[in-house]
Order: sequence, then structure tokens, then C-alpha cells
Amino acid sequence: MPEYTAPLRDMRFVLHELLNVDEHYQKLNLEEVNAELIDAFLEEGARFASNELAPLNRSGDEEGCQFNEGEVTTPKGFKEAYQKYVEGGWPSLGGDVNYGGQGLPSTAGIAISEMIGTANWSWSMYPGLSNGAVATIESHGTDEQKATFLPKLISGEWTGTMCLTEPHCGSDLGILKSRAIPQADGSYKISGTKIFISAGEHDMAENIIHIVLARLPDAPAGTRGISLFIVPKFKVNADGTLGERNGVACGSIEEKMGIKASATCVMNFDDAEGYLIGPENRGLNCMFTFMNFARLGTAIQGVAHAQKGFEGGLRYARERLAMRALSGPKNPEGPADPIIVHPDVRRMLLTAKAFAEGGRALVYYISQLGDVVQKSTDEEERKQADELMAFLTPIAKAFLTEAGLEAANHGVQIYGGHGFIREWGMEQNVRDARISTLYEGTTGIQALDLLGRKVLQTQGASLRNWTKIIHKFCQANAENDAVKEFVEPLAAYNKEWGEITTAIGMQAMQNVENVGAASVDYLMYSGYVTLAYFWAAMAATAQAQLDAGTSEEAFYKAKIATARFYFKRILPRTAGHKGGIEGGLDCLMELDEEHFAF
Amino acid sequence: MPEYTAPLRDMRFVLHELLNVDEHYQKLNLEEVNAELIDAFLEEGARFASNELAPLNRSGDEEGCQFNEGEVTTPKGFKEAYQKYVEGGWPSLGGDVNYGGQGLPSTAGIAISEMIGTANWSWSMYPGLSNGAVATIESHGTDEQKATFLPKLISGEWTGTMCLTEPHCGSDLGILKSRAIPQADGSYKISGTKIFISAGEHDMAENIIHIVLARLPDAPAGTRGISLFIVPKFKVNADGTLGERNGVACGSIEEKMGIKASATCVMNFDDAEGYLIGPENRGLNCMFTFMNFARLGTAIQGVAHAQKGFEGGLRYARERLAMRALSGPKNPEGPADPIIVHPDVRRMLLTAKAFAEGGRALVYYISQLGDVVQKSTDEEERKQADELMAFLTPIAKAFLTEAGLEAANHGVQIYGGHGFIREWGMEQNVRDARISTLYEGTTGIQALDLLGRKVLQTQGASLRNWTKIIHKFCQANAENDAVKEFVEPLAAYNKEWGEITTAIGMQAMQNVENVGAASVDYLMYSGYVTLAYFWAAMAATAQAQLDAGTSEEAFYKAKIATARFYFKRILPRTAGHKGGIEGGLDCLMELDEEHFAF
Repeated sequence: MPEYTAPLRDMRFVLHELLNVDEHYQKLNLEEVNAELIDAFLEEGARFASNELAPLNRSGDEEGCQFNEGEVTTPKGFKEAYQKYVEGGWPSLGGDVNYGGQGLPSTAGIAISEMIGTANWSWSMYPGLSNGAVATIESHGTDEQKATFLPKLISGEWTGTMCLTEPHCGSDLGILKSRAIPQADGSYKISGTKIFISAGEHDMAENIIHIVLARLPDAPAGTRGISLFIVPKFKVNADGTLGERNGVACGSIEEKMGIKASATCVMNFDDAEGYLIGPENRGLNCMFTFMNFARLGTAIQGVAHAQKGFEGGLRYARERLAMRALSGPKNPEGPADPIIVHPDVRRMLLTAKAFAEGGRALVYYISQLGDVVQKSTDEEERKQADELMAFLTPIAKAFLTEAGLEAANHGVQIYGGHGFIREWGMEQNVRDARISTLYEGTTGIQALDLLGRKVLQTQGASLRNWTKIIHKFCQANAENDAVKEFVEPLAAYNKEWGEITTAIGMQAMQNVENVGAASVDYLMYSGYVTLAYFWAAMAATAQAQLDAGTSEEAFYKAKIATARFYFKRILPRTAGHKGGIEGGLDCLMELDEEHFAF
Repeated sequence: MPEYTAPLRDMRFVLHELLNVDEHYQKLNLEEVNAELIDAFLEEGARFASNELAPLNRSGDEEGCQFNEGEVTTPKGFKEAYQKYVEGGWPSLGGDVNYGGQGLPSTAGIAISEMIGTANWSWSMYPGLSNGAVATIESHGTDEQKATFLPKLISGEWTGTMCLTEPHCGSDLGILKSRAIPQADGSYKISGTKIFISAGEHDMAENIIHIVLARLPDAPAGTRGISLFIVPKFKVNADGTLGERNGVACGSIEEKMGIKASATCVMNFDDAEGYLIGPENRGLNCMFTFMNFARLGTAIQGVAHAQKGFEGGLRYARERLAMRALSGPKNPEGPADPIIVHPDVRRMLLTAKAFAEGGRALVYYISQLGDVVQKSTDEEERKQADELMAFLTPIAKAFLTEAGLEAANHGVQIYGGHGFIREWGMEQNVRDARISTLYEGTTGIQALDLLGRKVLQTQGASLRNWTKIIHKFCQANAENDAVKEFVEPLAAYNKEWGEITTAIGMQAMQNVENVGAASVDYLMYSGYVTLAYFWAAMAATAQAQLDAGTSEEAFYKAKIATARFYFKRILPRTAGHKGGIEGGLDCLMELDEEHFAF
């Protein structure tokens, strides 16, 4: 049976020991949050995830969502779990205090998001999308819009969506066709078809607030002619009660490979009443608030599936008996040894563990940058954190989801043939993970964002912001013999990263298509080096605890051992990606389109 | 809609131009087969695969097999397609002429197996398993057993299975528990539970012949105490008619991630009448006939899923419009460019293409070695081919299935979010592919077989047999400027392969666990270099045709361009695997079992 045990010790290690959130909150003058509150959240969140959500994960997958005449029924138990979630006050953690939120920083909820997502990714998407809608309205809404929509979104009574994709366009939103016609009362009539709308329709909340991209009449073509609208499922009366049904309806739900308990809806807008949010034709810019939010959320999904692959694989590797260790029996009284004795099984387990724990550190770190962006009163500090966050987000989204998918596959592989059978939960983990490299911008799109927009368009400045941090860490630990084994190679890779970037930049000046040729290998390279930094930093933190004397020696030694594994067995993959980049563009473009197949 | 167009031109290229099967048949004095017959098979097989099987692929996945009181119903159309297959005489291609077979060599049917498998892998498993049962009885059966079972297995009236796995053991057959009690009449009573039995029960044939591993009373423990038995579903009367039902029944079928139209059965043997095949306690050795057969069959599965990912991805990449090429519009009159203009989409397409076509060459080459083993009258030549086949089989099985899974995932990725939706068929391709790295020996098991048994136990002799062939090719083409770009790096990798092997061998003498630590990276390294040889050889063959003058210039140039892509963008991955091997054992073994998680 798939279960979920939240890795609370590791979460506390990252939040308290690696990232020092207590000190960080003090610096930001956030009196409402401290280590004690965080720990209480962790305990409570773990209980909710393990007791309420994990038991619905497999049944949700098997049952799926049902569609019937415009209505979507979520799997048994989903609605009740959502009620408990709302009653527990979880949706309001980060919300604006003026609209009923608790106003807590991003780091206060990041571990909750991870736990909920790992326990039941499909379920987590219903509240997850709402968080994005809240953030968008908080950032771009008028006071009236905020007053109308935020309180019930923040309380969780209503949920939200993000309506971007249309049948003919996803990555390329510039060609979207949905139309918005201005009305005399200041509202708009929205018409068009949106697809892949997660939580577009369901039975868990009384209203659904859609955030919709559409074009005004005579808007310029392309991405500069797109505006953003709020379109509620039920119109909202002046007194806040629900009014008549709006002209938006779910036309069908998709049959998918995974996340089957998450309703993926075709939404038909037919003269639906909508309200412009943000400036005309600047919708895509406003939507970036939502998209960055969603991208970090999807990075969490990478951690979630890696963690689940690791936990499931570990449970089986300890129990399943097969073969003797090559060096002789380790379980002589049994018929065979537990498979965890075999080096290759350990390689798979440690890979999943290194991705989960390293990914956790990266995601929580970005969340900490988010705190600064959101809460700091120092303009320059906010700007720096924002730039760093923008640089790290595509790495976290794409690299961690690729890593999560790999780790989920290791989870299956450790089970052998049993991994392919539903009852163990490992195959569902792969199916659920598979979407994560696709939605919220594919790996290819993230890679272009990273290399093209973030790195090359800033002449490398955004990369240097980050490599400088790594460089400072290496310098600070240069004399620390205990972590030399990590710091030395990290410093070398950090330098190589810059060199590779310069080389691509030069080629891109000759022919810009070189950017696309290098992008995904470059992103993966960047991800491996970035995770190496977090592993080195975690090893240094653990070593400091050991040096100081601790009763948790085994925990800190395991952290260092996992760092060692990462540096010795995972980081060398960078050589393959470097080689791929050097392989260049020409061999990709040589074949005419009609000569790919005969 | 997923369709299937057999890559006939490429199949002919491999069979006729690369492998020269016509000359090969003449050398083996096989008068019954020639290029003309092969081509007729290709045309006919492609028609059958495309017209009869491909249309049942998605419906078979959605419907799955039904289990009801011991009976298994296959999806709609499966039975009828099987009838046509039998009527077409396909099952008998390779069978012994003394029992109604056509006695054709392995290469005569290899492309048929690929086409059938690519069109509908689930369906292909029903006749596929029969082929293995036939091979086992042909090799190890008594004349009476052959006379009783072969004619109807070869005609396809009956099908066969392979019953190895038990609930507590798969990879480690040494601990299997099924029992065989000798009876006065020379037969045995077989009891035990077998799981994961493909085609163990179904409605497509009137009898099912199980090949079963079980222990005799007082048999030695471990793998040397296992015997092999024939256990028919219905006993066979002396006159060949079906007798009473035997004591074997399907207890349930598994719910799986993919290959849902293939019945994966729990088979309960309860004093079932069985007949010893081969010597007592030598069952595992006899079973190797079957297993090598199944491993090559699974290697074909890797090619099949790579081909399907490539074909599906190509279709979409030509049609789907998104974004402009970074260097400017390529389809200025349309709203966006077809995504095949983007270098990263091409990278994914070419990766799938390089795996499919390179894998095809490797698999067909092994099949050609099989012809020699089966048909040559020269003992030494047979021995050499057999050794080479034994060396290449784990590489083909494990590397090509890993590559096939990767390519299937590229197929999904090219479709973006649409790839996750059932209707395009790409997600089914991933789900179906996922089993291929698990069954018939996981990638880890194949890697131990390759590095431990094949390479190190022969002191590297089996590797040298193969690197010598590569070396000779490089020498023969050393002066050929047109293929220098392939031959030079290939020669360098070929040398490095030996060096890496020697280094592992030395470490293994210190501590044998080093074998398990290096094995999977070593296997992947070996696979990339082996495929590089086939790509270099295909490029040289194509270049020779260009030099000689041809009306198919585009085809041959595409072959060379794909070789170039493989060498420049795929082969560099070896550096990552080399680095992984060098990362060594210690970092895998450092963590105590109880310290993997806290």
C-alpha cells in the first residue's frame, strides 16, 4: 500500500539549519512568524497530508473525475477533504490580511504545499490553482475586484483557475483567439474556448473564479494584444451573494495519462461577463505573476514525485529478498538478501533521495527569495531577490520535474515487474509525474526562457548574480578540509558554467538558432550545478553541526554521504550535457523537413 | 489518431544493404530464402500490421482484458486478428519443417516481429510467447513431446507461455517453490503459483502450452535444483485431440500501467499433469533458450516504441504551428511556424529516429547471428556467432528498451500538453514501453549479466570479440575521408571501452561489489558505443551508395545526417556514464540501511 510519511526532519533541516528562516524573518521584521510556528505548521500539515489526502490518492486515480452535462464530480472523499482543508484555515496562510488572509510569507507554506502535493498531487491542484488566482488579483486587481473576490478565494469558499491555453495554442499564446467585447457598464463579454483548464469545473466549492486571457477588439496582433479578465462561474451580487450563472461552462474533461483525479476541463466562454484586470493589452505581463507562481508550484511537483519514488522504493528495497550480495550473504538466515544490499538498487534509491532533498533545498530557497520580494522594505534587496528568483525559476521548474520523473521511474524500477502493477502505487507516481515536464511551460520552453531571456538577454548578468553566490560559498569554505571534496569540484563547475555560457553567447551572435540547439542541455547542466551547490551547502551545514557536537550524528552523516553520492555519481552527467551543447546546431538543421522519414 | 506506417525503406536498407542477407543466405546454403522472399514478407507483414493490428491498439488499451471465473476475454477484434494471422501462415515462419514449420532463418521474420509489435505490442505478445515455447521444445523436447506439441504450436492453433516468476521471486529464480512430484506413468504433478504470466489464459486459441519451472523432491537448493516441464491447459489424447482440462487455472489478471490488452495472469498449478523437458535439475539452462529469445524480442520492443514515438512526433511536428523560428518566420503566411523548425524539437525527433534506426540495425544484426547459430554447418562459426550473440543480447535488451522509453517520452514531449491526453496515442506508447525495462530481466539484471557473466568471467574475451569487429571496420575505413568523422571517434571510444573494462576488472578483484556499482553505467556506455558502430557502418554503406550513384540521394544523405546527429549529440552521453563508473562503489555503500531516511 502506498503511504506517505512526511520527511519532517529534512524539512526542518532545510528551513531552520540551511536557510535559517528564523533569522530571515527577523531581518524582514515579520513578527507574525517564527520557527516555532513553522514547526507547528509542519506537524499539522503532515497529519493532514498523511491522514486525509494520502488515503485518497489511489482511489482518486482509479475513480477519476466524472463529467455529466456540464457538471464535474470529483472522486469520493475529495470534497470532504477540501472542507477540512478550508476549516483548518490552510487556504488563507499567505493571503492579504485586509481580505481575511494571514499574510504569512511564502516559506511558511512551502512545506505544506510539498506535503499535500506528495500525498495527493491531483487533489492539491484544486487549492493550488486558487493560490495563483489570489496572487494575480492581489497584484493587479482594483480595490473593488479585491473586495469582491479575494475574501472568499482566500478563505477557500471559492476556488480559482488560470485560463490560457486554447486548442490551437499553448506555448505560443501570441496567437490566441478568445475575444472580449467592452460593454456599456464597464464589463466585457468574453467568448472563446479554453482547454487544459485544471479545476475549471468541480463540486468542491460554490463558485469558481476564472482568470482568462482574451483579446480586445482591434488589439495589436501577438503577445502585446492580450488582456486579462476575471470571469466568475456565478456572477457576484453587490451584497456578495451569488447571482446568476455566467456564460461559462465546462464542455468536457480530458482522459489523461495521470493526475486523473484533477479535472482538466474544456471551458467554453459564450458572452460570459468578465472584468478587465490590469491594463488593456498587458494581460500577459500580469499573467506572469500567476505563471511564476505556477512554475514554482510545478517545481514542488518534481520534489513530490522524487520523494514518493524514494519512499516507495526504500520500503520495498528493505523488504524484498532477492539474490545474495556479490560479496556474500548479508541475511544468511533468510532465503536471500534484501535488495537494498545491491549497489545498483542503492544507486537508484540514492538518486531519488538526492533529487528529492536537493530539490527541496532549491525550492525552499526560491520561496525564501519570494519572501524578500514580497515583504522586504529595501527596494534594492527586493530587486535582487526578484532577479535571482526569475533566473532560478525555469531551472527549478524544468530540471526538478525532469529529475522527479526520473526518480519516479527509479521507484518503479526498484520494484521490478511489481512496479508496473497498480497496487504498489509506483506506476501512478510515474503517470502523475509525466505532466510536470509539460504544463506551465514545457522543459523546452523553460530552457529558452533561461538561456534566451534570462541569461543571454542580460549579457549573462543574471547568471553571474547566481554564480557569484556560489563563488562566495566556495571561497568561504576553501579552507574547510571537511567539505573540500565538494567545494573544489563545485568551484570548477561554477567556472565552467560561465565558460559554456560565453561560448554559446558567441555562437548565438553568429546565428541565434544556436540558442535553441543548446537550450535543453544547457538547462540540465545548470540544474545539475545548481543542485551541486545546494548539496555542498547542506554538507557544510551538516558538518558544522557535527563539529559542534550533536545527538543526531547519523542524520548529519547521512546528509554528507548523500552529498558525496551526488558529487560522485550524478554530477558527472554534466559532461554529457556539455558534450551535447558542443555538438552544436548544424547536425539538427541538416535534414530537410520532408527527409525525416521515407 | 495514431497510425502505423512501416519503415519499409529502412528495413530494406538494413537487411539488404547493411547486412547483405542475400549473400548471407547463400553462404549458409539456405535455398528456401532470398531477398525477393524477404521483400514479399515485408510488404505483406506491413499490410497486416497496419490494417489489422494498428486499428486495435488504442481500443485494446481502453478495453483491456476481462477476467471472469478463470476465463480471460481479450479486447474486441484481437481474436479475429489472431485468426487471420494463423490463416496467413505467419506463426510457422521459423518452425521446424518436420512439424509443419517453414524452417526459415530468424532474419526472415525479424522485421515482421518489429512491424507487428510497433502496430500493437499487446497483441504481439500472444504469438510472441508461442515462438519461445516452440524454440524450447524444439531444442530440449523428446521426439514424442515434439510430435505432440509442436505441430499445433507452429501452426498457431495453440499458443505457449513461459512460467518462471512466483510471487516472492522474479530475478532470483533460485528460490522458487513450485513443486513437481514424479508419477508412476512418467509424468509429474505440478503445484505452485506463477505470476506475471503473459498470455497465460485467453480466448484466442483452443489450447495453451505452459513451459513451467518447478522443483523435484529432494532437488538441490538454488538454481541447480530447478527442472523444466510442459504443462498443457488441456491434456492431449494419444490421437492428438484435446482431452480433459488439466489442473492449471488462471486466478486473476493484473491491473497494469500499460500493455493492458496483454493478459498478465496469475496461474495456479494444482497437481497439474506435466512432462519433464530436458534433464532433471537443468531446467534453468534449458530455459535460457526461451529467455534469450524473449530478450531479443524485448529488444525489438525498444525499437518499436522508439519508432512509434518518432512517427507520432514527426506527424505532429510537421502540423502543429507554434512560435516563430528564432531566426525569423519560416511559414510567413501562417500564424506561426510548424514546430519542426525549432532546433530542440528536431533534437527530440532525431533522438527518437537515431534510436529506432540504430536499434533496428543492432537487433537485425543479432538476428543474423541467430541465423548462423541455427543454420550454419561450421561448428567454429556457430560457436563464434553464439558467443557474440550472448554478449550483444543484454546490451540490446537493456539499452534499447531504455532508449525506447526515452524516445517514447520524447514523443509525448513534442506534443506538449496534448501528449498527456489519450487520444493522440503518445501516452499509451510510454505506458506500454515502461514494462520493457522490467520484464525478461530488468536493466540491472542485464547489466550484471553483461559485465559480470559475459565480460569479466571471460576475462574480457567476449568484449574483445566485438571490439575486434569494430576495430576492423575502423581500419577498413581509415582512409575513407567521407566517413572519417565517424570512424575516428568510434575508434577512440572502442579503445576507451576496453580501458574502462580493464579498470573495472582490477577494482572487482579488490572487491567484487564494484561490478554491481559500475554495471548499469557500463551497460549504457556499451550501448552507446555499440550503436555508434552501427551508425558509422550505416553511414559508410550510405556513402558507398552515393559514391556509386543512386536515384535515392535524399534517403542516403538523411542516413548520413542522422549518423552525424548521433555522433555529435547522443554519443557524448558516454562521458556521463564513464564519470558515473569512476564515481565508484564507496559512495553507494556508505549509508547504513537504517540511515536512508529519518
